[in-house]
Amino acid sequence: MTDFASYLELDLPRINEFLERETERLDPVVQPVTRHVLLAGGKRLRPLLTLLTARSLGTSGIDILPMACALEFLHSATLLHDDILDGARLRRGQEAAHIVFGRTETILAGDVLLALANRLAAEYGLSRLTFALADAIMRTATGEVREIAGIRNAGMDIEEYLRIITDKTAYLFQCGCQCGAILSGRGEDMERAAKDFGFNLGVAFQLVDDALDYSAGSDVSGKPLGGDLREGKLTLPLIFYFQDLGSGERRVMAEKFERDELTEEDIRTVITQVREKGFAEKTRAAAVKYAERAGSALDVFPDGEEKAVLGQILEYVLARKK
Amino acid sequence: MTDFASYLELDLPRINEFLERETERLDPVVQPVTRHVLLAGGKRLRPLLTLLTARSLGTSGIDILPMACALEFLHSATLLHDDILDGARLRRGQEAAHIVFGRTETILAGDVLLALANRLAAEYGLSRLTFALADAIMRTATGEVREIAGIRNAGMDIEEYLRIITDKTAYLFQCGCQCGAILSGRGEDMERAAKDFGFNLGVAFQLVDDALDYSAGSDVSGKPLGGDLREGKLTLPLIFYFQDLGSGERRVMAEKFERDELTEEDIRTVITQVREKGFAEKTRAAAVKYAERAGSALDVFPDGEEKAVLGQILEYVLARKK
Repeated sequence: MTDFASYLELDLPRINEFLERETERLDPVVQPVTRHVLLAGGKRLRPLLTLLTARSLGTSGIDILPMACALEFLHSATLLHDDILDGARLRRGQEAAHIVFGRTETILAGDVLLALANRLAAEYGLSRLTFALADAIMRTATGEVREIAGIRNAGMDIEEYLRIITDKTAYLFQCGCQCGAILSGRGEDMERAAKDFGFNLGVAFQLVDDALDYSAGSDVSGKPLGGDLREGKLTLPLIFYFQDLGSGERRVMAEKFERDELTEEDIRTVITQVREKGFAEKTRAAAVKYAERAGSALDVFPDGEEKAVLGQILEYVLARKK
Repeated sequence: MTDFASYLELDLPRINEFLERETERLDPVVQPVTRHVLLAGGKRLRPLLTLLTARSLGTSGIDILPMACALEFLHSATLLHDDILDGARLRRGQEAAHIVFGRTETILAGDVLLALANRLAAEYGLSRLTFALADAIMRTATGEVREIAGIRNAGMDIEEYLRIITDKTAYLFQCGCQCGAILSGRGEDMERAAKDFGFNLGVAFQLVDDALDYSAGSDVSGKPLGGDLREGKLTLPLIFYFQDLGSGERRVMAEKFERDELTEEDIRTVITQVREKGFAEKTRAAAVKYAERAGSALDVFPDGEEKAVLGQILEYVLARKK
């Protein structure tokens, strides 16, 4: 993956510098929280997608970096609000913002970052960018509400699970690629292909993420194993696990799951079973299908370095171990 | 105030219908929270300002209603997030959304409404609208963080107090009027006058609000008297109260305020003193000065019915008892 690696080497510092500079321009009272979430690291996958899509399709000199970084601001805002919801204590291996700075400051800092993302998009004078961004925020937040509504519901089906992960994750990936395509001005067909690529990449990304929650160690991911299970989130590996149980055992475990009565031993058992029976791998296999659709969408992109790197990102998303 | 009254009669149902229709188009999972905050009533002052400013300056057939309602969606979003921060149990006389629906759903429903406001603005294809909106959201949220940072700080001065209320309240009023002016397309001078009007009206509005917290009863305002004092918010009437105390008594009361050790009797004493010594009235007198500046800004507006109604809104804001 040399191309991807060299792109990262070139673009990551530029993205990080821009994020840092914009954060410094915020009012000093909101800087600590925003710096905490933004400068703790992160893969910067969403801004990279905007940069690569726009460059691949051609942008005739427009500076794409602010739009790309708007996606990262937006993503960071959702992380700030998410962590409050989840009661998460860790984020990217560090203490979550709401633990360090308080819930109130964290909610508002998230609002500031949402607004900053919109302002950066508005500066291009292309209202379709703002429209795409607003739509992605609405879907992301709606997906999170839907996820909460499904917490500790062992009866949730795969269709509802897929709807949750597309809403909460895939539309933001889609938005990143779409904004790149809008800036390239190559027309609706190419924009549709870019959206299609981002959407399917996003679903694949979340499926792998949900698999990792049962198959990575907290030493690599920065999060404890089985976090989703503890929080009562029914993700695909757990759906497979429930489907595989005999009806009697399923009733017992589902009831414990729904009543938040799983013991530490139960949790260890579920994690072991999910791993041993290959349900994490089965989830990764589902991700491969979406990645294939993403790859097909990429077919219409003009051949070139960026198209190759976008393909490598697909591989990276499927292969990642944390 | 017949003109204002007849305007309300004409516009309020249209505003409320639009809010209701847009809310119905949201995903069913976020409808309960958004309907709760939006349809509980409210003065709809911000959308009215957009409508009146735009009509006063002339809009050549553009439908202003979606933009006007975007301001109300934005305002409702800040209410949802605010109430969580304040731990407020009541809003517009009803139980606050986070008590009824949970904190998590309420934060996210606020995000959805913020995004909906941006989407409605983006639909006009004028990125200055989105820019104005994004700027107002950033300032409003920043003002709220600043307010929290000042909680239980008896040493805060009037300058910082004014900065907080301009950030958290005045910029949204300013934004409402500015968006009306942008839609009218009458140029920068008129836009500046509209902003000036909205800004000063907003400061006056918040000063009166802070005076009412010491001078209205919970029967009319829907909020218990002295709510700001109980929450540790140093507003102008309380700044006047501290300034008036002898240094010994000031030290004792300031320490109790800062340590959250005021007894119910202390609180009653402060409220009585603020009222008897006329500090609520003195705060209203400060509001009058800002209202006068707003009135001057209005001078350049073309004469007509809407200009008259905007003047009446100024009077209404100063005169309001709840």
